[in-house]
Amino acid sequence: MTAVREIRLKSRPNGVPTHDNFELATVDLPAPGPGEVQVKNLWMTVDPYMRGRMNDVKSYVPPFQLGAPLEGGAIGEVTLSNDPSLKPGDLVQSNLGWREGFNAPAASVQKLETAGLPPQAFLGAAGMPGLTAYAGLLRVAALKDGDIVFVSGAAGAVGSMVVQIAKAKGHTVIGSAGGAEKVAFLKEIGCDEVIDYKAEKDLTAALLRAAPKGIDVYFDNVGGEHLEAALAAARPFARFALCGAISMYNATELPPGPRNLVQMVGKQLRMEGFIVSTHWDMMADYHRELGQWVKEGKVTWRETVKEGIEKAPDAFVGLFKGENLGKMLVKLA
Amino acid sequence: MTAVREIRLKSRPNGVPTHDNFELATVDLPAPGPGEVQVKNLWMTVDPYMRGRMNDVKSYVPPFQLGAPLEGGAIGEVTLSNDPSLKPGDLVQSNLGWREGFNAPAASVQKLETAGLPPQAFLGAAGMPGLTAYAGLLRVAALKDGDIVFVSGAAGAVGSMVVQIAKAKGHTVIGSAGGAEKVAFLKEIGCDEVIDYKAEKDLTAALLRAAPKGIDVYFDNVGGEHLEAALAAARPFARFALCGAISMYNATELPPGPRNLVQMVGKQLRMEGFIVSTHWDMMADYHRELGQWVKEGKVTWRETVKEGIEKAPDAFVGLFKGENLGKMLVKLA
Repeated sequence: MTAVREIRLKSRPNGVPTHDNFELATVDLPAPGPGEVQVKNLWMTVDPYMRGRMNDVKSYVPPFQLGAPLEGGAIGEVTLSNDPSLKPGDLVQSNLGWREGFNAPAASVQKLETAGLPPQAFLGAAGMPGLTAYAGLLRVAALKDGDIVFVSGAAGAVGSMVVQIAKAKGHTVIGSAGGAEKVAFLKEIGCDEVIDYKAEKDLTAALLRAAPKGIDVYFDNVGGEHLEAALAAARPFARFALCGAISMYNATELPPGPRNLVQMVGKQLRMEGFIVSTHWDMMADYHRELGQWVKEGKVTWRETVKEGIEKAPDAFVGLFKGENLGKMLVKLA
Repeated sequence: MTAVREIRLKSRPNGVPTHDNFELATVDLPAPGPGEVQVKNLWMTVDPYMRGRMNDVKSYVPPFQLGAPLEGGAIGEVTLSNDPSLKPGDLVQSNLGWREGFNAPAASVQKLETAGLPPQAFLGAAGMPGLTAYAGLLRVAALKDGDIVFVSGAAGAVGSMVVQIAKAKGHTVIGSAGGAEKVAFLKEIGCDEVIDYKAEKDLTAALLRAAPKGIDVYFDNVGGEHLEAALAAARPFARFALCGAISMYNATELPPGPRNLVQMVGKQLRMEGFIVSTHWDMMADYHRELGQWVKEGKVTWRETVKEGIEKAPDAFVGLFKGENLGKMLVKLA
């Protein structure tokens, strides 16, 4: 028997999540059953989309259950194996984060080949957030030569990959983020123009200054006022990839949408929401291109790391305060 | 010299247009110059998009000039010709409506072959509004087998063609319009479910009742609350074709957008604005299909006709009061 700690959903957040919504519990793992492996988690991820699963509403993923451990991406190491496909020491990726370890059927975890990257990169730049950026830009927004790209939440896990992928492909990129540290980071990774939205009274005016010719692609991570600014700055036939609206995840009353949505008609704009799981088929292409970009020094990433399972609620709550530069991660071992 | 009357823009409307914004003037047409024709207009159209051109703002078409005659689609008959390509008696289509007659280079008007349809149909079902419906459904909304279609402004020139084209292609169609006469008309042309939006307090609830399985395509002619209802009722991967938002054309302050726009992410919805002129290339296909549908009795249309150039402002203002069933036209001769 191995004692492991896990984070459970104690109560559903009403608005912004707080520590009271979570509880830390310890459970004993028995020996793994036939066909099962026992995994010690090394890293887990916290992502904004998890906020949606904390509500008791039907969505594209089922809600988290009260009293049960939360779920999410994790990288772990096999410690015991009752299946020939995996052996102790193998690295595996699973959706069983928010816990220090688990038993699971070998087929329910995925063996990880890191190809020289640090394993936690597969929770960020080389994982779901990176593919989100890649699929959103290339497929959803149908990025084409010469497009001017605007991205909000640009210093986050997804946003910072959008910036770098667009730059690697030769585009002019305008990024928006909040605060001096994030602004500096965005300049460092090659953003042509950076908007510190916390320092701007009129976001539309700021975007029109940063993109005097207008924008062709908007990658939306935040919703709200940013979307209104992007509509105002959009050139004819611009495409918007809507990835999530972190400004709304904690809203208890839905705020009104952009007042200038009608511009979509005259400018013939396209707006499309997407979920990364629809685009898993692009992962091999993405990894091939990413490997090349990393080798050429065109793409890099940052991590904001909290240590210990007990810090996982901190890490999650911090996402909504903008505490992360790049990927927010929790190191578990 | 021939005296003809024309309607000029006297002042720019602030909000809903009134008769004070227009003036009737009489001008003398000289004999047509070399390469020119003289045309007597028989029919002219009034369309909601003209409201936008009455504002002094840059848009996809330049604004109308104060003191000059307005412009818009017209069908006329050549009375004098100084060009071998046209002869007296030929029917021509032009953008020189809002006047009883004009001189113009022969190349600037288009000879009309009616193929057995009444000539004014080319201002409606067989013209720009019909192609708007066809291109919006087939190309912009990418209509596919089994889609459930919702259309607002369904009794109008564009909307009533959307209903019938979708029905001719075998779809379930929900239409929204205001008032008993329009509701009866929509049932007559085969709408499966009709929403009288003027009689409904909660449009979203009404749409969910009319489309319990949800909708796959929304053809938006009105914007505002209808768009919010469509987002709520949308099934995953639904596509919205935004054709115009008559509810906003006269707005002096832009109203907020839909509060539930964030649903676009989780449901992976697509929303695309369009202008019919981008899709002229589909006209031949449309005329071929339309001819077949008319022959089979699957498509018909209604006209609301005002008589005399002096009634053109009435006709135009009436569009925003919902006075038209089908295409609003002015008969000039």
